[in-house]
Amino acid sequence: MKEIGIGVLGFGTVGVGVVQALITNGDLLSDRSGVRLVLRKVVDLDIETDRGVVLDPGILSTDAADVLQAPDIDIVVELIGGTTIAKDFIIQALSNGKSVVTANKALLAECGEDIFKTASEHQTDLFYEASVGGGIPVIKALREGLVANHIDSIYGILNGTCNYILTRMERDGNAFDEVLKDAQELGFAEAEPGLDIDGLDTAHKAILLASIAFGRTVSMDEVHTEGIRGLSTLDIRYALELGYRIKLLGIIKQDNGSVDVRVHPTLVPVNHMLAKVDGVYNAVLVNGDVVGQTLYYGRGAGREPTASAVVADIVDIARNIALDARHRLAPQHEQSNPPDIRPIQDIEARYYLRLSLLDRPGTLAAVARTLGDHGISIASVIQKTEHVGDSVPAIILTRISDVRNVMDAIADLEKMDVVGPDIVRIIVDDLD
Amino acid sequence: MKEIGIGVLGFGTVGVGVVQALITNGDLLSDRSGVRLVLRKVVDLDIETDRGVVLDPGILSTDAADVLQAPDIDIVVELIGGTTIAKDFIIQALSNGKSVVTANKALLAECGEDIFKTASEHQTDLFYEASVGGGIPVIKALREGLVANHIDSIYGILNGTCNYILTRMERDGNAFDEVLKDAQELGFAEAEPGLDIDGLDTAHKAILLASIAFGRTVSMDEVHTEGIRGLSTLDIRYALELGYRIKLLGIIKQDNGSVDVRVHPTLVPVNHMLAKVDGVYNAVLVNGDVVGQTLYYGRGAGREPTASAVVADIVDIARNIALDARHRLAPQHEQSNPPDIRPIQDIEARYYLRLSLLDRPGTLAAVARTLGDHGISIASVIQKTEHVGDSVPAIILTRISDVRNVMDAIADLEKMDVVGPDIVRIIVDDLD
Repeated sequence: MKEIGIGVLGFGTVGVGVVQALITNGDLLSDRSGVRLVLRKVVDLDIETDRGVVLDPGILSTDAADVLQAPDIDIVVELIGGTTIAKDFIIQALSNGKSVVTANKALLAECGEDIFKTASEHQTDLFYEASVGGGIPVIKALREGLVANHIDSIYGILNGTCNYILTRMERDGNAFDEVLKDAQELGFAEAEPGLDIDGLDTAHKAILLASIAFGRTVSMDEVHTEGIRGLSTLDIRYALELGYRIKLLGIIKQDNGSVDVRVHPTLVPVNHMLAKVDGVYNAVLVNGDVVGQTLYYGRGAGREPTASAVVADIVDIARNIALDARHRLAPQHEQSNPPDIRPIQDIEARYYLRLSLLDRPGTLAAVARTLGDHGISIASVIQKTEHVGDSVPAIILTRISDVRNVMDAIADLEKMDVVGPDIVRIIVDDLD
Repeated sequence: MKEIGIGVLGFGTVGVGVVQALITNGDLLSDRSGVRLVLRKVVDLDIETDRGVVLDPGILSTDAADVLQAPDIDIVVELIGGTTIAKDFIIQALSNGKSVVTANKALLAECGEDIFKTASEHQTDLFYEASVGGGIPVIKALREGLVANHIDSIYGILNGTCNYILTRMERDGNAFDEVLKDAQELGFAEAEPGLDIDGLDTAHKAILLASIAFGRTVSMDEVHTEGIRGLSTLDIRYALELGYRIKLLGIIKQDNGSVDVRVHPTLVPVNHMLAKVDGVYNAVLVNGDVVGQTLYYGRGAGREPTASAVVADIVDIARNIALDARHRLAPQHEQSNPPDIRPIQDIEARYYLRLSLLDRPGTLAAVARTLGDHGISIASVIQKTEHVGDSVPAIILTRISDVRNVMDAIADLEKMDVVGPDIVRIIVDDLD
């Protein structure tokens, strides 16, 4: 049986998971793939700490060259993370004719173009299933399973930390800061949580999905990105009363040859499958012009789910190497007429608005008039009776409106004496 | 750009969908695959009826040899259905060195072994994504995306007709026969509905999933198969009161080196993602030992979803042909130590039982005693007050019990004077 040599860079959480899966399910992998995956080197700066995995002597090394230069290593698995040294190593590996598997979404979202080009130049493989949706084979679904489809839209719950926090806020009614602290203690959120809770991680993943769907690069500054920091339990509760859950979504929508890519909390109908995705689970809803609506669900992070995706990539590449069919699948196809990227100001959306109104006759009429002046129709209004000082909250659901007009209207409303500052605005999407 | 010749056998509903997708999204497919898919022949006995698709003259033919023998056709798409002529054509195509795409689950479930062997002997490709779950790329997920995993269980809503009928029965409270008639009029059920409603179609699909997951063939007589014919709205209603929905599931469960494959109505928790799958949609829940729980959802039948899956297979094969890497993926891997298939009598399950009891003191105690004598513990009992004659219904949920014991207990109960005949029994599964 043909042997394929594997070298792993980075022996952290995911690295250990990959090594364990290769060892534990090695025979199964040989049965299924017809090749023998041989772990030849595992490189980390720290090779002393006991990770609970028994490796043959000589496999551990502190020198990346033992992987990058080794003639008996065919596939390099990059699990270091970050965008500096990881990039150097990947470029080196590809330039040496090796294939690469990575879970590094930040790197690919920010420097994907260079890396993809290097892989194509050297006709090697670069696979990155684990970078989006953890163990869910959603990249494979998108670029292979749905290859027959123009993609109309993608909606993804792509960050387990945010979804965990939102689920807990809704279930327990606790404030964001409190739930975040709890999540940090339980290991569901990082000590430095910004990458997750400010939506950047979701944006990285949305960029990768958009790149695959539309055959073009998308840069971070083209993605409108809002996180969940400061989201109020009040809005979660009011949304629920209206039949919606608030989820942080990565949204990619194609319309008339242009695409918008954005990340923001979104009101989704409580009965939709996506609304049922709780805790650290991820899900991606893909609408294709032929297949219609499909959805992919599973654990979006963690040692084992990520390892499952990394090993699947290794096997895919090993199959190519065995048949001398490297670069069977380009890391990202180039589309002849890729769509433009459209800023959020140029799209239409429905909005949930929460305003703090002075409890005085005529206030709501004035608000409605201002919205009307900006061409915004109101679908429903709920005036709450819970006073905060001499103000009461009012919830307005708009009909489909130009986002630009909504922003202008909000700016005008916030200047009014009878309206409090900091109007809460959250996009509503029925996902159909 | 390299050209790959396609021949389609069968110009019915799905055939038209495939031809349309190849034409409409042809440029996109070339961008994504790097090859040009050229439709060379479409064969059907009826080439007169207008299908609303414009084809070049000479493409339509009534002679299958124009596809099977043609040197310029690389990929044969079999969309005739049935298990006789379709099998001959597929075997001929593979023997002539052509690759084959089929959506024919009945054929593969019943004669898969011969066909898979022929593909392997001739080192050609045989892909069949459309045979399970319509447009959902679940076969790809199972044999590629989850390749790193031993599969612990698969639960599938695999038949859109049954799921549509169950959804309507629950929503409208109408009886099975009435909903079936309606579904037939709306085109959601066949005039001869047995294949669907008696669970055979689900069994075919479960066999294919089990074969892929465990690397062994499974025959129809190894699959316990119950359909939804005769399911009562009463049980749907009582199940709902208990927090469950009734779904027709294909279930594949591995335990200790043996596997059971079965098809039957199942009570699933109302809050589980699988319980939310309504109407003609399908979904497959896969538990892997590394990845944990994943779920795949989409339209399980129909022209376009099926075409989406067929075209994905065509592209997969075309990529292999372009790199001379045919048979990169065997139609079904052979596992070194495949598990045994275990009959349903040998498994454990929880049961929902509905009994008709004579409304007389001591009846329930006698029933409980009989269950106890067979080693069956009761989780809960609900005695209904709705009299039918001098009887009342009682609902019993058992704890996990040997199915064999439950069957024996039911046989004994049905002999009792105070218990009506035809005790309703439905397996309950929490899907965790």
